Amino acid sequence: MSTIEETIKTMAIAAKQAAHKLISLSTERKNRVLLRMADALAAQQEFIRGENDKDLEAGRDKGLSKAMLDRLTLSDKVMASMISGLQEVAALPDPVGEVTEMVKRPNGIMVGRMRIPLGVIGMIYESRPNVTVDAAALCLKAGNSILLRGGSEAIHSNLALARVLQECLAAENIDAAAIQVIPVTDRAAVTYMLGLEEQIDLIIPRGGEGLIRFVAENSRIPVLKHYKGVCHVFVDDTADHAMAINIVMNGKVQRPGVCNSLETLLVHEAIAAAFLPRVGEALAGAGVEIRGCPRTCALLPYARAAMDSDWGMEFLDLILAVKVVPDLESAMQHIVTHGSQHTEAIVTNSYANGQRFLREVDASAVMINASTRFSDGGQFGLGAEIGISTTKLHAYGPMGLKELTTRKFIVYGEGQVRV
Amino acid sequence: MSTIEETIKTMAIAAKQAAHKLISLSTERKNRVLLRMADALAAQQEFIRGENDKDLEAGRDKGLSKAMLDRLTLSDKVMASMISGLQEVAALPDPVGEVTEMVKRPNGIMVGRMRIPLGVIGMIYESRPNVTVDAAALCLKAGNSILLRGGSEAIHSNLALARVLQECLAAENIDAAAIQVIPVTDRAAVTYMLGLEEQIDLIIPRGGEGLIRFVAENSRIPVLKHYKGVCHVFVDDTADHAMAINIVMNGKVQRPGVCNSLETLLVHEAIAAAFLPRVGEALAGAGVEIRGCPRTCALLPYARAAMDSDWGMEFLDLILAVKVVPDLESAMQHIVTHGSQHTEAIVTNSYANGQRFLREVDASAVMINASTRFSDGGQFGLGAEIGISTTKLHAYGPMGLKELTTRKFIVYGEGQVRV
Repeated sequence: MSTIEETIKTMAIAAKQAAHKLISLSTERKNRVLLRMADALAAQQEFIRGENDKDLEAGRDKGLSKAMLDRLTLSDKVMASMISGLQEVAALPDPVGEVTEMVKRPNGIMVGRMRIPLGVIGMIYESRPNVTVDAAALCLKAGNSILLRGGSEAIHSNLALARVLQECLAAENIDAAAIQVIPVTDRAAVTYMLGLEEQIDLIIPRGGEGLIRFVAENSRIPVLKHYKGVCHVFVDDTADHAMAINIVMNGKVQRPGVCNSLETLLVHEAIAAAFLPRVGEALAGAGVEIRGCPRTCALLPYARAAMDSDWGMEFLDLILAVKVVPDLESAMQHIVTHGSQHTEAIVTNSYANGQRFLREVDASAVMINASTRFSDGGQFGLGAEIGISTTKLHAYGPMGLKELTTRKFIVYGEGQVRV
Repeated sequence: MSTIEETIKTMAIAAKQAAHKLISLSTERKNRVLLRMADALAAQQEFIRGENDKDLEAGRDKGLSKAMLDRLTLSDKVMASMISGLQEVAALPDPVGEVTEMVKRPNGIMVGRMRIPLGVIGMIYESRPNVTVDAAALCLKAGNSILLRGGSEAIHSNLALARVLQECLAAENIDAAAIQVIPVTDRAAVTYMLGLEEQIDLIIPRGGEGLIRFVAENSRIPVLKHYKGVCHVFVDDTADHAMAINIVMNGKVQRPGVCNSLETLLVHEAIAAAFLPRVGEALAGAGVEIRGCPRTCALLPYARAAMDSDWGMEFLDLILAVKVVPDLESAMQHIVTHGSQHTEAIVTNSYANGQRFLREVDASAVMINASTRFSDGGQFGLGAEIGISTTKLHAYGPMGLKELTTRKFIVYGEGQVRV
């Protein structure tokens, strides 16, 4: 084993041992340490900023883009959001220990399911150092250890944040190995981490599609991930036009760079002539480039002709693909072909079409008459979000505290044996 | 692509298309086709037996063991159990479409979770051809397509069973690609199947540890699996001795060859001198070989000294490892070190110790005062079992119909947008 491998394996073994003790930690103690962490981040801002400055300086020397440097910066706003995040997680209900579905079987044994932590979560992420704190807080509340492997450009910030969090764990007599940042920035560290199936129970990657594909293709450990969000809105022939315009504009314009923003608009042909010029005007007014099918372009002179590659494209920008479709069926067929199983919405006043869309469209979130931008743990009421899954195993859609747990069977008997 | 790859990919694509249509199939139609399958198996026994005979003949020529030939045989009893299995699955409640956790968010959107099929299940299994029917029935009821890849020694039987099931699908106007047996017996077929992550949503392997490790190590697709069951019973100092003997005997003797049978007995030192001779006599009387720690051997002259490798060993035979431990803590430590996260039980009359064992022991099923043999989908009331998972993602423990589904978020809005 190389030194890198030894370092990581030692950390993973320590994380597993720490996780074993977290199982029986009371909610009260978990909340107390979370609130202590919030206080400590506030108290140690100077130290954290100093370490963050080292990363920013190195980033400028390496010629990182302004957007990259922005993501890397622990500004007042980001610090405040980490602190309030810790307080919010402390206030959330503890999922661990909940017993459900308890039944008495004919032979008298009582069988139920108890919610338990997953164990050790491996988080692999890119530049934003605030992920270190946000993810650690959620994992701790759900009773899990976390091994964090952030990007090399944020290494000083991540290690500084972990140090503050670990001091809080130690002060509450909790094994500090419950939260660890891997100090090795070598790519080989990720590959090696992905092979530690004996120690790590779940990998959550957060970052660009390249990182996520790398993780998915190299992991022996289950991975919860989404590659991208290509969200569609289908405006049905019975839609309220003003409502549809609102939903389209919110989806495309409010925050175009995120995964639940709108990328393709599908319009029922019966209302295309009336609806498209109105929505087109609103979009153009907000600076949105429209890439349309031939029928869209015929109605909107300022639209560009869409290329084949525009269908299913995640623009993450003020660009919208627009297509006229003959009916609900074709809209759903387009979504099957080009969707990303993230979030899909219909705007309709037809009860039958709304219900059918809801039932048949295969995506982690399916909506009637609402903006795709709602597809988010906070908006859905999960409290906080550790990520989004567009694969169906374990969790599908935004993941909160509950998705960081699993359930075991428990049996209360009085000496019963099997006959 | 080779011909094998083309064949399998074509089948997987067809399975995915069929799955898309299964989503909206009514419970009534699913049940009707399941009952038709039961009738068809009965009506076509002669054809099925004829094909089974071909496998048996080839197996005898290849020199398969008697146990292997037994597992391969579609006897009257096995045929009857497949038929009643189909009827039982038809009688189970349909998990698909259930909506839960519906809440109204502050902005008025209604957010809930709808249970949906997983999509396409890949089943990889060894000699028993009845798995073909049992697994297909459960997958169909949960709205999934299934791709079955059985062992080469059962290929005629599996293809015959699939033909009968597919005829029933066709007769009910359901896409016959919902149930397919891969006709290629080459090992390369498994490897190729495990790479089809675009088409297959979940792999369930059933068979020996070798097969399961091969699948787990080569799959790009999530795998639900258990390697082995090394179940422990800890007899606490407050245990009722007669109850403990009953539970130990049931665990070890009733059916030693299965994964929920007992492999290691841990005994509290305070009762060892009184309890071990009694349980030892019962075990010896049933022909069980005892492999004991030094303290056990000192009490039981007929016990063999256990080797290090006996702790954590899955004997699947009339052999039991026995160890005297100083307390609950050491018993739990032994289980952490040697357990397989399958099923663990305590026999105790201490409320505190029972609750602590239940909460802290990390296994898919944890029991107080009951036989480990209860760890089974049928016994737990799941109705029928597609397998057992000892990994924590998605499902932990026996898996029934519900574990063949997932949940998506659904949103009912009235035009809300995000602010």
